[in-house]
Order: sequence, then C-alpha cells, then structure tokens
Amino acid sequence: MALQPTINDVARAAGVSKGLVSLALNDRAGVAPDTRARILEAAEELGWHPNPSARGLTSRRAYALGLIVRRDPSIIEADPFFSAFIAGVETVLADRGQVLVLSVVPDVESEAKAYTRLAHDKRVDGFLITDLLADDHRIHLIEGLGMHAVTLGEPNVDSTFPVVTRDYDKGIAALADHLMELGHRRIAHVSGDERMLHGRLRREQFERSMSDAGLQAVVVPTDFSPEQGAAATEALLDSAEPPTAIIYGNDPMAIAGMSVAHRRGLRVPGDLSVTGLDGSQIGTYVYPSLTTLRNDPTEWGLAAASSLLRLIEEGASDDVALPPAELVVRASTAPPARP
Amino acid sequence: MALQPTINDVARAAGVSKGLVSLALNDRAGVAPDTRARILEAAEELGWHPNPSARGLTSRRAYALGLIVRRDPSIIEADPFFSAFIAGVETVLADRGQVLVLSVVPDVESEAKAYTRLAHDKRVDGFLITDLLADDHRIHLIEGLGMHAVTLGEPNVDSTFPVVTRDYDKGIAALADHLMELGHRRIAHVSGDERMLHGRLRREQFERSMSDAGLQAVVVPTDFSPEQGAAATEALLDSAEPPTAIIYGNDPMAIAGMSVAHRRGLRVPGDLSVTGLDGSQIGTYVYPSLTTLRNDPTEWGLAAASSLLRLIEEGASDDVALPPAELVVRASTAPPARP
Repeated sequence: MALQPTINDVARAAGVSKGLVSLALNDRAGVAPDTRARILEAAEELGWHPNPSARGLTSRRAYALGLIVRRDPSIIEADPFFSAFIAGVETVLADRGQVLVLSVVPDVESEAKAYTRLAHDKRVDGFLITDLLADDHRIHLIEGLGMHAVTLGEPNVDSTFPVVTRDYDKGIAALADHLMELGHRRIAHVSGDERMLHGRLRREQFERSMSDAGLQAVVVPTDFSPEQGAAATEALLDSAEPPTAIIYGNDPMAIAGMSVAHRRGLRVPGDLSVTGLDGSQIGTYVYPSLTTLRNDPTEWGLAAASSLLRLIEEGASDDVALPPAELVVRASTAPPARP
Repeated sequence: MALQPTINDVARAAGVSKGLVSLALNDRAGVAPDTRARILEAAEELGWHPNPSARGLTSRRAYALGLIVRRDPSIIEADPFFSAFIAGVETVLADRGQVLVLSVVPDVESEAKAYTRLAHDKRVDGFLITDLLADDHRIHLIEGLGMHAVTLGEPNVDSTFPVVTRDYDKGIAALADHLMELGHRRIAHVSGDERMLHGRLRREQFERSMSDAGLQAVVVPTDFSPEQGAAATEALLDSAEPPTAIIYGNDPMAIAGMSVAHRRGLRVPGDLSVTGLDGSQIGTYVYPSLTTLRNDPTEWGLAAASSLLRLIEEGASDDVALPPAELVVRASTAPPARP
C-alpha cells in the first residue's frame, strides 16, 4: 500500500508545527488566517486527504470498537456464541453511546485489509479478538497498526494485549467425571475446529481426563457445524464399539447428534448420553434438555468490551478471569442401559 | 436536542454558496485564501464543528451501513433471524470492503439518539430498518436526518424508502391448509410481538384462514422468546379444549413448545402437531424436525444490503420482492391421533 502523506509531512511543508496543522484543520482558534491558508495549501499540494484521519485528528476517538470475524457466514448463523457475545458487547457500548463496527471476512487477506483499513481510517478505537487460533497472526498485525485490543482467551504467542479468560479445564474434567460416575466407559468427544485454540484445549483436557481414568479417548474433529456434528454421530454409532456417551463441542452439534440417535431408535439418555459445551439458550428448551458447561457468551462480551474501553480510556487494563465454566446437569445424561 | 449549525448556516454567515463552503472545508482548489479564511471563521463563530461531518464532507461516503436494533439483548441471543440476517448483510459488504455499524439500544430515546449520532457523524451512508413496528416513527426520523434507508417489509406509514418484502400470507395459508388437510380442527397460533408489523400480519392471516374454514382462531401472543412460547403451550394444553396443532411465531418457540409436550408425555406429532415459522437452521436438526415456513434471513440480508448500497451509489433503488415464504413439511406434523 502506498503511504499516505501524514500530518507531519504537511507541517514540514508549511513550515509550522504539527499542533498548528491540527488546529487549522480543526478550525480551532489561534491560527492566523494566512497561516491557516498556507497549511491548507500545503495539505492540498501533498495530496493529503483529511478524509481517513479527519475524525481521529479532531476527536482522537472513534467511539467505536471493531470486531472482525473470519468465518463462513453460514457458520455464524448456527453459532450460539456469536449473537450472545454481541449482545454483551452492545450492552456495554449502549450505556456509553458507542457502537460496534462489525466486519465478516472470507479469508486471511481480506481480514488483514479489514484491520488495516479500520485502523488507518480511525473508525474504531480498538479491536475485540475472538476465535483465537494457534499462533494467531492477528496479534502481531494489530500491534503493528498501533491499535488497542483485547483477546478472548490466552494466545499461545507473545502478546501485549489484556486477555479475558475462563478456566474450561476444570469444567471439562467435571463433565468427564459426571459421565464416568454414571457408569460410562466408552465416552467420545465430537470436537470443534482444531485450528481454534479453544477447540484444541478442550480436546486436550478431554484426553487427559480419559487417560487419567485409564479409558480410551475417542475424538472426532469437526468444523463446529450441526451437519458435521450429525455426521460424526453417525460414524460413532456405526463403529464396532459405539460410545454410550458423547461430549459435543457445542450445543447445536449435541442437538443434531440427539436427533441422529432418535432417528436410529435410540433413547436419549437411556441408550446414549449426550452433552453440549458452551451452554446455549436453546439447549435449555430441547427435549431432553442438554447437560452442558455454562459459558455465558454475554458475560464474555460484557467483560471484553469493558476491558477494551478501559484500555482505550486509561491506557491500561488488567486481565480478566471470568468464573470457571460450570457443569450444568440436565436431562440428557443418565447411567448407560448397557454398561 | 439542540440543533447543530449546518453547512447552510455557515454558507449564509460567510455570504457564500454552500458548494464553496464544502470546497473550502474539503481543502479543494478553487477557493481564494481570504474566502477560505472567512468561511472557516464563520464556521468557528457558529460553533460548527467539522468533527462529526468531516468524513462525510471530504469523502461523501462512510463506506458503512448502519443497523440499530432496539431489543433486549437476551431476545437477540435467541433470535435465529438476527445472526443469519447479519451474515447476509456482511456477505454483500465484504465483497465491497465495507462494514456494518451495529448498535443495540434499550429504549426509544437511545434509539433516536443513535440514529441522529450516526447520521450527524456521517459514520454510515444509510440504515437498514428491521423489526418494523405499526406506525413506525423511524421512517420520519431517518427522512428528517436526510439519510438513505431500506425497510424490511412494507411500513404502514408513508415512506420514501425502498422496501424489501416477502409474501408471507400465502405461506401462512398453505401452512393452515396443510394442518386442516391432515384433519386438524383445533389449531392454535402462539403469535409473536403484536407491536411488530410482521407478527401482526401473520396473526391476521392465520385468523383469515381459520375464519374461511369456519374454525375458531385461538391466538396466544408472546414476546417471541422461548420462555413465553413454553408458557403459552402450557396454557393451551391446560385449556378445556386443547389444540391438536400449534403454529408458533418462530422456530425457537416451537422447539420450546415441543419440549413442554414431551414432558407432559404427549407424542409429537402423534398427540400434538407443531410448526415453527421463519425456518431456522436448528429446526432442521431437532427431533422431530420442524415443519415451518422457509424465510431465509440470509437472503433478506443480501437483498436489503444490496438495495441500500444501490440507493447510496445511484440515488435510487427499486423495491425488491423476495420469493414467497414456502411451506417446508418435515416430521413435526401428522394427522391427529384423536381428531
């Protein structure tokens, strides 16, 4: 990208201070008319467009947070985290008269462009980083842009940004214990997207729990979609030693998995116990209601937006540890009929 | 709210044309330095701040669309329309490197402030108007702000904005016919928020269908939440003549209603047929899968965003009629066991 002339270039060309340029372009008092005219001429000659930075120069604040999501739109549709997280963010922003700038991008290239454009145009004061990947390149990108950000989860690369975390390991262990205490020995995990850190960490904790109990950890990775959740269930139920309990990576996959079981004439939970993760509102209302881990995406949204605004306004913000994910036992888990 | 001085006021005070003011504030050629200085002084005296409008004046485009949603955040979490609609909007915007500015507001006052601020600050080029209310005040508000907009559905007040519509009446009639052909005579409608035009229109069409068939139209209004869908189901099943079929105002309420039936030992669809509206992804995966009307919120998002961008770029845009809502018969409807 060709570099835009900066306010420093304009100041040099007009032979005045950067502060005077800012005052002139802000129409503030204290600039003699001829000086002001010289500054405007210098800006014009250099091809300096106040356009992208005008707002930043005048107010220094965009009063907006940025959320750039790189996902297929159809995955967003099914994702119960997305809308609840946004609801939490918006609750914080509405209180302060601020807005969310949302961009959904298809690939890494568009993603980098989106971050760069929102930063250069000063359209946002900072970014919320969701769906952390292993070795997430966005940390370096956003630091390079000189922007504020908060990450959801702890990145596995160096980062100067505050993090919002929630201990999930204890919850996964509690969920595995719950199933083992019911008498399950063949427990499978239909895991989420392995490129995402949270999906990977949950799978690893599941494997530790199984290994500690001397059980085999059967894992079927998916892309988090209900379609792949259903397909994974079919594969597991067709296997030589089908599981008596399945832990799904999210509630929509668990709901799809329960339907597969029902259509095969299996009773849930009698013949197959099923759990979700990241407890969603709809998981409360399906039949049988879903045993899951409470995650509360709205709480993530509240905490992340508050932390980011604090960082923007005060220049620093502490890490936030949300309460550990809590096991919610409902009606979809029971002792196996045929242990 | 005190009125901000406009560019017209500045032009009058400086004794020049509005175009010259724009040129001066844009740092464009063609303005004599002393005229430019006079314009800037006039702006300063009037307390006209280029800040909010700087971007619009200089680029005339924010390259962003605005979506202001007045809802309780918890309703958004459960609403399958919201995230799928946004996915459609973002698909159009991503192709063009534009963004969505999203604001969720709690009340009418914050809503008016949000529209006014986004318009004055030129942070968006136009608005997407969703959840149309009867006598919706937003039409007049946005016209008064001189902004572009597109409405989802046809307002029942005068509007100069293009509309995106989908014929729902035929679909509701087809759904009612489907249930009557199966042999149902006691059909209830758990309707949505009556303040929203689409909820009201659907209820009216349901009543017409029942009336045409000489049947009684039982309607229980709700706020569209699964909680109220469940409560309405309890009330209906407790009534002296419980329905053999229930049409719910959206899929999440239907899913909650099915669970109520299951917990009471009723079979779906044997003892109670159930349908949703606005077919959601999760409705495909629940058991039994939901009979519903296909609405395709993503298609609404694609059409509304495209129409609004056309209006912004070309100054005019035609109304768009999406294909009529289509009956999707799945496994949650069957002849009544006890007609």
